[in-house]
Amino acid sequence: MAQSVLLTGASGRVGQAVLGDLADAYEWRLLDRDPPTEDLPGEFVVADITDDEAVREAMDEIDVVVHLAGDPRPEAPWSSVLTNNIDGTRTVYQAAVETGVEKVVFASSNHAVGAYETDERTPDMYRPHDEFLLDGTELPRPTNLYGVSKAAGETLGRYYHDEHDLSVISVRIGNLTEGHPPIDYERGQAMWLSYRDCAHLFDRCIQADYGYEIVYGISDNDRKYYSLERAQEVLDYEPQDNSAEHD
Amino acid sequence: MAQSVLLTGASGRVGQAVLGDLADAYEWRLLDRDPPTEDLPGEFVVADITDDEAVREAMDEIDVVVHLAGDPRPEAPWSSVLTNNIDGTRTVYQAAVETGVEKVVFASSNHAVGAYETDERTPDMYRPHDEFLLDGTELPRPTNLYGVSKAAGETLGRYYHDEHDLSVISVRIGNLTEGHPPIDYERGQAMWLSYRDCAHLFDRCIQADYGYEIVYGISDNDRKYYSLERAQEVLDYEPQDNSAEHD
Repeated sequence: MAQSVLLTGASGRVGQAVLGDLADAYEWRLLDRDPPTEDLPGEFVVADITDDEAVREAMDEIDVVVHLAGDPRPEAPWSSVLTNNIDGTRTVYQAAVETGVEKVVFASSNHAVGAYETDERTPDMYRPHDEFLLDGTELPRPTNLYGVSKAAGETLGRYYHDEHDLSVISVRIGNLTEGHPPIDYERGQAMWLSYRDCAHLFDRCIQADYGYEIVYGISDNDRKYYSLERAQEVLDYEPQDNSAEHD
Repeated sequence: MAQSVLLTGASGRVGQAVLGDLADAYEWRLLDRDPPTEDLPGEFVVADITDDEAVREAMDEIDVVVHLAGDPRPEAPWSSVLTNNIDGTRTVYQAAVETGVEKVVFASSNHAVGAYETDERTPDMYRPHDEFLLDGTELPRPTNLYGVSKAAGETLGRYYHDEHDLSVISVRIGNLTEGHPPIDYERGQAMWLSYRDCAHLFDRCIQADYGYEIVYGISDNDRKYYSLERAQEVLDYEPQDNSAEHD
């Protein structure tokens, strides 16, 4: 029988990519603040991620949670990321432990480490000859308060794994665009994540066995400054796209 | 002229250690939620760390902020550490940038990395023959939500340094006790911080030049699993006490 998966923030862009390819792969329960405007698979729960009780109820009989909900704006104000991203993510982890969920896949972001792109390193680090590489073992260096909130979500996941034995993976998602990579934007090309690679990556996150992991979520771009090694090793992630192979 | 230093959470235990030895070293402004019960140096401001305006006013004409305020209980509930430690620390950093403070010294904690003390490593890692060492470059692994909040405070400091050019140091404070190290508690002995070493360390944090740093705050104990290397290199920290030299 297919695993039952709760997808929070289902109406967002990552949710769209995931559901686009995996609609029939799981028994989906989708959660978002607003009712859906299009036809989506499975069951839909309208609830805010900060509503403890609604979140706990939404996890009833769920095997895996894919937690995408939160304020996705890099320029989001502190009050919003504190509530929606930090407190909201804690609500998800706490509910997961209380309801017996086995695994949580957390949508982190490249913004958690954006400040490694210093003036000295850029634009060289966006180009093929450069060898600078982040592998997920480095400390966060956020470029904005949104990135701070994502780093805090990663640490919450580490805590809930260590202390409550939940399987957790934090995916530092690159630049997700549909169809083709960003145009005239070297940085976005180096961290491009295609829709199908995104769906495949989250599929592997739902399936694979791990304790706590941090991986980068990008396609197999010619130039990348995020290592795919851990995603390949732990998840058997096999990206099919490459920003260099598009016009 | 002596530097003007704002000490938040001045009535707590770290504040007591710092003021005990450094009462005459700086022009102090002390801030705490409750009025002082004893005679303290400098000026005293009664304010809550979550009160943006009061915190900003308290930084008027201040060179360096030593930020100790927050809920200090390892078992503190999430709602308290979210408000007092995470949001409160953000309030301090934001006010520091707005008022032109040069440097913030942030009291982080051993609880931010407590989960490195796994069942496999303990109790060996508390004993002299063991070589396990944390040096401040490792990712947080908190043992409790208090530790999660301290790790978030570290990341906020990193962000405010990278994006707003504030000098920031996060001090992962060990086990601070007055007079002698903890008795019959190997873990506490390995991470002991004496009162005079604590005062000396914060003195060096106020004086030294740095961009962003994470250091461990412990005495020169025979057995330690926290490296003092970075504190020695960046701060010229020269601890005088050693838990092994006490009965």
